Amino acid sequence: MPRPDSRANDELRPTKITCGVQAFPEGSVLIETGLTRVLCAVSVEDNVPRFLRGSGQGWITAEYAMLPRATLTRTPRERTPRGRTQEIQRLIGRSLRAAVDLQRLGERTFTVDCDVLQADAGTRTAAITGGYVALYLAIAALVEEDQIPEIPILAAVAATSVGIVDGEARLDLCYDEDAAAEVDFNIVMTSEGDFVEVQGTAEGMPFSKHALEEVLSLAQQGIEELSAFQRNAIAAVTA
Amino acid sequence: MPRPDSRANDELRPTKITCGVQAFPEGSVLIETGLTRVLCAVSVEDNVPRFLRGSGQGWITAEYAMLPRATLTRTPRERTPRGRTQEIQRLIGRSLRAAVDLQRLGERTFTVDCDVLQADAGTRTAAITGGYVALYLAIAALVEEDQIPEIPILAAVAATSVGIVDGEARLDLCYDEDAAAEVDFNIVMTSEGDFVEVQGTAEGMPFSKHALEEVLSLAQQGIEELSAFQRNAIAAVTA
Amino acid sequence: MPRPDSRANDELRPTKITCGVQAFPEGSVLIETGLTRVLCAVSVEDNVPRFLRGSGQGWITAEYAMLPRATLTRTPRERTPRGRTQEIQRLIGRSLRAAVDLQRLGERTFTVDCDVLQADAGTRTAAITGGYVALYLAIAALVEEDQIPEIPILAAVAATSVGIVDGEARLDLCYDEDAAAEVDFNIVMTSEGDFVEVQGTAEGMPFSKHALEEVLSLAQQGIEELSAFQRNAIAAVTA
Amino acid sequence: MPRPDSRANDELRPTKITCGVQAFPEGSVLIETGLTRVLCAVSVEDNVPRFLRGSGQGWITAEYAMLPRATLTRTPRERTPRGRTQEIQRLIGRSLRAAVDLQRLGERTFTVDCDVLQADAGTRTAAITGGYVALYLAIAALVEEDQIPEIPILAAVAATSVGIVDGEARLDLCYDEDAAAEVDFNIVMTSEGDFVEVQGTAEGMPFSKHALEEVLSLAQQGIEELSAFQRNAIAAVTA
Amino acid sequence: MPRPDSRANDELRPTKITCGVQAFPEGSVLIETGLTRVLCAVSVEDNVPRFLRGSGQGWITAEYAMLPRATLTRTPRERTPRGRTQEIQRLIGRSLRAAVDLQRLGERTFTVDCDVLQADAGTRTAAITGGYVALYLAIAALVEEDQIPEIPILAAVAATSVGIVDGEARLDLCYDEDAAAEVDFNIVMTSEGDFVEVQGTAEGMPFSKHALEEVLSLAQQGIEELSAFQRNAIAAVTA
Amino acid sequence: MPRPDSRANDELRPTKITCGVQAFPEGSVLIETGLTRVLCAVSVEDNVPRFLRGSGQGWITAEYAMLPRATLTRTPRERTPRGRTQEIQRLIGRSLRAAVDLQRLGERTFTVDCDVLQADAGTRTAAITGGYVALYLAIAALVEEDQIPEIPILAAVAATSVGIVDGEARLDLCYDEDAAAEVDFNIVMTSEGDFVEVQGTAEGMPFSKHALEEVLSLAQQGIEELSAFQRNAIAAVTA
Repeated sequence: MPRPDSRANDELRPTKITCGVQAFPEGSVLIETGLTRVLCAVSVEDNVPRFLRGSGQGWITAEYAMLPRATLTRTPRERTPRGRTQEIQRLIGRSLRAAVDLQRLGERTFTVDCDVLQADAGTRTAAITGGYVALYLAIAALVEEDQIPEIPILAAVAATSVGIVDGEARLDLCYDEDAAAEVDFNIVMTSEGDFVEVQGTAEGMPFSKHALEEVLSLAQQGIEELSAFQRNAIAAVTA
Repeated sequence: MPRPDSRANDELRPTKITCGVQAFPEGSVLIETGLTRVLCAVSVEDNVPRFLRGSGQGWITAEYAMLPRATLTRTPRERTPRGRTQEIQRLIGRSLRAAVDLQRLGERTFTVDCDVLQADAGTRTAAITGGYVALYLAIAALVEEDQIPEIPILAAVAATSVGIVDGEARLDLCYDEDAAAEVDFNIVMTSEGDFVEVQGTAEGMPFSKHALEEVLSLAQQGIEELSAFQRNAIAAVTA
Repeated sequence: MPRPDSRANDELRPTKITCGVQAFPEGSVLIETGLTRVLCAVSVEDNVPRFLRGSGQGWITAEYAMLPRATLTRTPRERTPRGRTQEIQRLIGRSLRAAVDLQRLGERTFTVDCDVLQADAGTRTAAITGGYVALYLAIAALVEEDQIPEIPILAAVAATSVGIVDGEARLDLCYDEDAAAEVDFNIVMTSEGDFVEVQGTAEGMPFSKHALEEVLSLAQQGIEELSAFQRNAIAAVTA
Repeated sequence: MPRPDSRANDELRPTKITCGVQAFPEGSVLIETGLTRVLCAVSVEDNVPRFLRGSGQGWITAEYAMLPRATLTRTPRERTPRGRTQEIQRLIGRSLRAAVDLQRLGERTFTVDCDVLQADAGTRTAAITGGYVALYLAIAALVEEDQIPEIPILAAVAATSVGIVDGEARLDLCYDEDAAAEVDFNIVMTSEGDFVEVQGTAEGMPFSKHALEEVLSLAQQGIEELSAFQRNAIAAVTA
Repeated sequence: MPRPDSRANDELRPTKITCGVQAFPEGSVLIETGLTRVLCAVSVEDNVPRFLRGSGQGWITAEYAMLPRATLTRTPRERTPRGRTQEIQRLIGRSLRAAVDLQRLGERTFTVDCDVLQADAGTRTAAITGGYVALYLAIAALVEEDQIPEIPILAAVAATSVGIVDGEARLDLCYDEDAAAEVDFNIVMTSEGDFVEVQGTAEGMPFSKHALEEVLSLAQQGIEELSAFQRNAIAAVTA
Repeated sequence: MPRPDSRANDELRPTKITCGVQAFPEGSVLIETGLTRVLCAVSVEDNVPRFLRGSGQGWITAEYAMLPRATLTRTPRERTPRGRTQEIQRLIGRSLRAAVDLQRLGERTFTVDCDVLQADAGTRTAAITGGYVALYLAIAALVEEDQIPEIPILAAVAATSVGIVDGEARLDLCYDEDAAAEVDFNIVMTSEGDFVEVQGTAEGMPFSKHALEEVLSLAQQGIEELSAFQRNAIAAVTA
């Protein structure tokens, strides 16, 4: 069965990363993946959570939210972030921290606000991919201002979703596929091909080891492409 | 003393209203006024608050929020809307309800989500001016679909701020002026020159009746211009 | 059409301000306006909100609440103050701060608790008019104790409501008029005839500039009378 | 050692019960005991909590709160009632339900709001004693309107505190005694001399059976006097 | 009428106190009374609530909760402790504080967590009886470690319930009796026969002084037996 | 480097599953894994969440909590479940739903309460392994009562943790290993060797595909052993 938008199973949706879309944040990015649009804004503060005070080490944390009408029908604003939202925030934060040598950030907190303007699945992985670029820009600005000697990035980090739909492994699901998927993975990798997070859930039938391997290969290929988009977006503004 | 951006005292900031910026809402508008940017999205639901059930009448309500990094430094997300936010939401809702004959909307609720992407003062008045256009588009779509016989608008509604800064009345304050203003007004008017809301506060010294009259004249002139922007934006998409 | 209680359009309801009704507060007042009764109690604390620490300046803040059975039918206690309540609290606080030179209060916070014992409209304006007197008494007590050299009042502040009912401007609406009003104003002025706050809302039809002027004149006259009540109440206890 | 106000150990503070102090409630009472003042207002609604629906039986519930400046220094308003407040509300409700044959009230809820205007100890027992009278008035009004055939009171209920201070049992403690008491009892009894509630706490040393008996005798005598005050207050308005 | 489990009216349910049931707490006890099972765990922290800082005095506080399926049907977890729970927590804390000379504890807080694993009435009194033993063990451990010179216990404290069912006073009610009781007492006493708390409530008819005396006698006898169980449990682990 | 408890890298901790430990739940299990102890209690209700009403289908949901002193030092009770807790609850629920054909449960909700009595890492995987057994018992009881024709289990489900510590993959981490792990996996599998959930996180360095494969093999072996423990526990009570 063909995909709703006629893509090949190993094809990403059209993806675009635009830097500097907001006037005030230390780094800001709009990432578009198909209809999905996430605004990533990084704020830097000169303090750290209590458990890091005096350690000389920095911290990276993320918040994730949707505009009420990012979705097909209106979703009420969350007063207290629900379980799903907290899970996403924790995933984004962990993934971005894996990209950076926190020791060399100084006692600063980088808050990455990921606000979904439009949602057609894959918002959390888009937030990681775009958030990485916004974080890079914010750190580069500190280097520019001589507050940090050099950019302490260990490896670029990007993420994508992969799913099994109608028995076939498919890369970067859109909403209609996501809703029909039997197995649903979010995978975060470095630009060097190592894993940061592997989260896979059987929505219906449990899946075999063979299926797992197919999924991982697709993810690896997709993330290589996303890494290239990230490099190009950064090059365009820092050249 | 000249204004920070060299405008005349009776000059609005550059203003732009773009229709249809989101894929899913029944009506959506991005309004830009100087650096201020507010996304207005209207959602229509086929029910009304309890106090209107069975009345045959519709309802219009508004929500207002800021992205955390709409501001110069990061503002934490509000879990429970604070007093200021609730005041703004109530003002937007009342103002937009004054534009429409609710009886002729049928038992439908129009929720106008006003999300501030960037804030340089005047966000609540921009939300009213932009929200009116988004509301118009959502109603026009219902007429298009033959769900309502005709557009039950009583009068277009727009809003602006006026302040007294350094003893001079000035139209459409930016953030630096707003912070320094001695008197601060938000005024909502119809395209026919009548008042919907007059909210004036002496931040420092109380103000005389003469000053009040100056302020009202400036507002009237500004709102006439804003009404023209609204008409043009609507004409561009409904022609 | 005559008013429900046969008053002239420019006539206040019977008004009475009683000082010292509570044993413990630094200043306390019961204000009665028609059936409306508000207890205003001022508490003085030797500290200020964080944003004023070290400034040498004082602060005035207000809280507003209703007993559950102040109203015709029982109103449940508000756990978290709703939007309307917060709006009222902010209005009372701003209005009373306009009366005082905060610099000369020292680093003290004056909390004005306005508790509505009985509600027949006009509770927020009664709270301002009565709260001013209670605040004066609390400050005078500090002067008495030589903690402040003299009373740093800039101007007395009082408030009233004015509305347009059946096309006629009327002073100091009672509940039945308030519910039927087409336009509803709360106006705060100094005893010298300057404006502190002007808040006007078209409940139904927008209103013309001419109507606005009528409303302002009525308010001015009513507030002159209220200022006299305030002076007499203070004179009775400080003579 | 003499009592702070020179009373005999078995002497109540000056006590006054005034009926009909509010315009709107179905029954209202101001009870004054020394400096303590509690406003008791009863509201009647034609429904019952879920667990009683369809039972034909009525319900009586109580709420208890203090004005912030009922106390010597300001006590912040409780947003969520604390443990102490909930304990008091439950005690008042249980005590008043013991006075009435709920079966004969019909499916109605009587809410007894007890708002402390001024607090000098004994507020919960004053709330029970005054609340009983307000409840009686509200029920009598229903009988007057032929909604209930006759007043279904089983026995009048009143309450007082007793404590052991400096080794001596004392009736109706004021704040200074309450703070110094070694043992603290709140006792609720019927006008016929039976017990509804006995709550005694050793604040310091545990107490002997002999001390318990002394306390119970004092309470019994005080409650007889309070029952007479209740009867007189009711007689004055229903004669 | 015989009791549901054929006990004599003055007979406790089979009771067992097991010490050291958890690996981590400073003191832990499982108390079983009939089907009722409460796990009491004591934690010691080297600080005290604000109101005691610098006093040299210690503090004892209690928390009480039920597992959702401690009860016959599932009881949802309490997010904010309800009134009943707070009343119980305050009772347990007060009762245990009466057992100890807080001055000689040093500035330490002992938190006694009472978690009900299974509930068949009498959970709060079991929590006091078991909590006392767990507290003793935690204090004894500090003495063992030479942090406190000797065990500053004033008197052992235990508790039981007594009720009037079918007109008869009965000791240590199980759930079926508790639900049917006309009068319900919780009584806390020392091993020396003095009272710490007396809490009696008429669920239906008020009760006479004679009934009160019967109840107190039964309680006294039951608490003597519980004190012996406590002594034996402690002896078994500290010998 | 040897493991803290001298186990082989592919060795589970001593594990014990005891059925029927509580009197009231429809199914209850205590699972012990090393020092970790989780009480799993299943409650059955004859209704389903709103989104399933009328579908004829059942639902399985889980709650997870820790006693405050399950941990080495006291952890305050969570009023609102934090992100981590919600993540765990969602994982347990999803995993257990994968074991059952929900269509054949009828419109019933099975709530699996997992209360951690003692925590030494691996509590969420123990909750899944034990929760499965408790769920089986609750369903078997319904079959016994002829409410369901046969047990609609698709496959047994069990879970374990695997981590990379000091560069070595290790099965079933205890707390000290968990805190030191570079990579941390929780894996849920069926007794037939298929995957239900794979959740892996690089705590420090990203991990290679080779490491991922080692981890999966260890998990598979451990889960085979756990499946045997489950079968034996069930056989012991249903034989």
